Amino acid sequence: MARTDIATEVPYDRIRAVEWVDNRLRLIDQRILPGQYTHLTYDNVQDCAHAIRDMVVRGAPAIGITAAYAVVLAARTRYRENPRIWRDAIQPDLSYLSDARPTAVNLRWAVERMRALIATLSGETPEPALLAEAKRIHADDIAANRRMGELGAGLIVKGSGVLTHCNTGALATGGYGTALGVVRAGYATGRIAHVYADETRPWLQGARLTAWELLQEGIPATLIADSAAAYLMKQGKVAWVIVGADRIAANGDTANKIGTYMTAVAARHHGVKFMVVAPTSTVDLATAEGSAIPIEARPETEVLNFGGTRTAPEGAQAWNPAFDITPADLIDAIVTEKGVVEGPTREEIAAMMAA
Amino acid sequence: MARTDIATEVPYDRIRAVEWVDNRLRLIDQRILPGQYTHLTYDNVQDCAHAIRDMVVRGAPAIGITAAYAVVLAARTRYRENPRIWRDAIQPDLSYLSDARPTAVNLRWAVERMRALIATLSGETPEPALLAEAKRIHADDIAANRRMGELGAGLIVKGSGVLTHCNTGALATGGYGTALGVVRAGYATGRIAHVYADETRPWLQGARLTAWELLQEGIPATLIADSAAAYLMKQGKVAWVIVGADRIAANGDTANKIGTYMTAVAARHHGVKFMVVAPTSTVDLATAEGSAIPIEARPETEVLNFGGTRTAPEGAQAWNPAFDITPADLIDAIVTEKGVVEGPTREEIAAMMAA
Repeated sequence: MARTDIATEVPYDRIRAVEWVDNRLRLIDQRILPGQYTHLTYDNVQDCAHAIRDMVVRGAPAIGITAAYAVVLAARTRYRENPRIWRDAIQPDLSYLSDARPTAVNLRWAVERMRALIATLSGETPEPALLAEAKRIHADDIAANRRMGELGAGLIVKGSGVLTHCNTGALATGGYGTALGVVRAGYATGRIAHVYADETRPWLQGARLTAWELLQEGIPATLIADSAAAYLMKQGKVAWVIVGADRIAANGDTANKIGTYMTAVAARHHGVKFMVVAPTSTVDLATAEGSAIPIEARPETEVLNFGGTRTAPEGAQAWNPAFDITPADLIDAIVTEKGVVEGPTREEIAAMMAA
Repeated sequence: MARTDIATEVPYDRIRAVEWVDNRLRLIDQRILPGQYTHLTYDNVQDCAHAIRDMVVRGAPAIGITAAYAVVLAARTRYRENPRIWRDAIQPDLSYLSDARPTAVNLRWAVERMRALIATLSGETPEPALLAEAKRIHADDIAANRRMGELGAGLIVKGSGVLTHCNTGALATGGYGTALGVVRAGYATGRIAHVYADETRPWLQGARLTAWELLQEGIPATLIADSAAAYLMKQGKVAWVIVGADRIAANGDTANKIGTYMTAVAARHHGVKFMVVAPTSTVDLATAEGSAIPIEARPETEVLNFGGTRTAPEGAQAWNPAFDITPADLIDAIVTEKGVVEGPTREEIAAMMAA
């Protein structure tokens, strides 16, 4: 089990997907979990961008942290090539990283934070300062997740069943997780008794990654087909749906993994509460509402195939949006490291962000 | 492409999953479609029951027709063994067939219809009379589907997009299909312009079977992950959701493939209409309401695995109900061969059945 030096003895917190080891970036290859638990190591920015696009690493916060470390590698290369013009030479690298995936705002947020630091650096080798900043982004993310875990768990009545979608755990973040951080904290304090996990087609983040994380931590969990969620709610097994976010617009509309919206509709129909858990780096005040969030269309082969095996007939076509938008009025609580907004509105989100 | 002698020149009607060929039962092996198009042949009732349980054949009407032909095979065997006591000896075979799967009522309906005929037969060899009855059940099913196709399509405004769940086509019936019969008739008459098909985890009847059927017939279709249905509705692409049924209770509550209920909830949220298409052999007036319908729990390996490959981690657990219940108040129309009930109630369903 991977452990970073950032980790401390918090219960149910033993997994790190993104690490800086021997001056290189090391990622768990999430494409092949849980069948194989393997690390890949990166020493240049192009390979890091490909790792993001190919989903070696996925999850909005984890992508942002990966990009921050990738900027360190880019600066090392460009500074070695020419220490006088490295700050100009690195600009295309930053754009290339930013464009690796379109929906999650954390990626651009992390790159812009690194770009701002680059602009302030003098002629000395930039790597130490940039690495310190990347590590700060990483450590801040873990700290934010632990804080959100406490805040989110505090909303849940003791002994509840909860449902989660996709993977929002240690694998999707710097560590501990967003929605799965609430699950970790809620299980540690007895507020959560059982976790149901949507398998999350087409990429099966739930079946492959969330099930793996919860097994590693010894948290009791039951996988379901995504379409079984409403029937589960009907039986009274679920008090809260808890999900992460790839981008939260200024009015609270939330982009998250495809299927989140359908689960929110089902939750409202059954009187089940719906919680979005994401750090403030996911909140994009420049995006007025959900309709302005670009939704990544991923290859239709993800729906037509399974693990490299063709399942649909040759000639079949598919529609594969990677994300959807859950409108704010279906969300009962947005939890960030700065606090909880219940019944989110534009005004309350602005106030929380300004706090 | 299989064709039975029952087939006539109706557009988009070229597939037969269940056939009586050379005095034996021949089934398309639906477990391995669309990768392989293979027939399996059966000459005894036990193997037929296993074929139903193992889902070589699936779909409530197709299961009933298979069972009817299986009774012919059972009678042949028992009559050869002892022509004096065959009507007693066959009783355990009938029970064994009835118990192969619990939720679909058509299976028991077909077996009881054959049992009633058996009770009337004299000492002569029973096979001709029973085979004629099985063929009548089969032909009646196809005729009912064509009638339902016309009736259901008549509800749809010209040029509509529709969404279907699971496979309710020729593969699931004697031929033509229930909900896919409406799709066939609707496409032939221009009322349906495009079909969206849920892939239908865990067994992928949509990705494997519906996509295959629609490709065979040249009807334009797009596969989606089940959880993408709400986002598709939000974009205004769908006027009707059209599904089949495994059992319709006396009040209109409908058991159908897991995920049907969640799709119905999403449809209502978006003002999309919801149509259930099933022959009257699927209506069970002895079941007062949906809560009395037994729901088959299938092996959790169907969720934990994919096509024989383990996808979830070892040690993971899953919940795998094969069906769920859609309450009558989420159903806009129930279409049977006897007519259309809009806004179904106990009284209207009773009146239709008595017609």
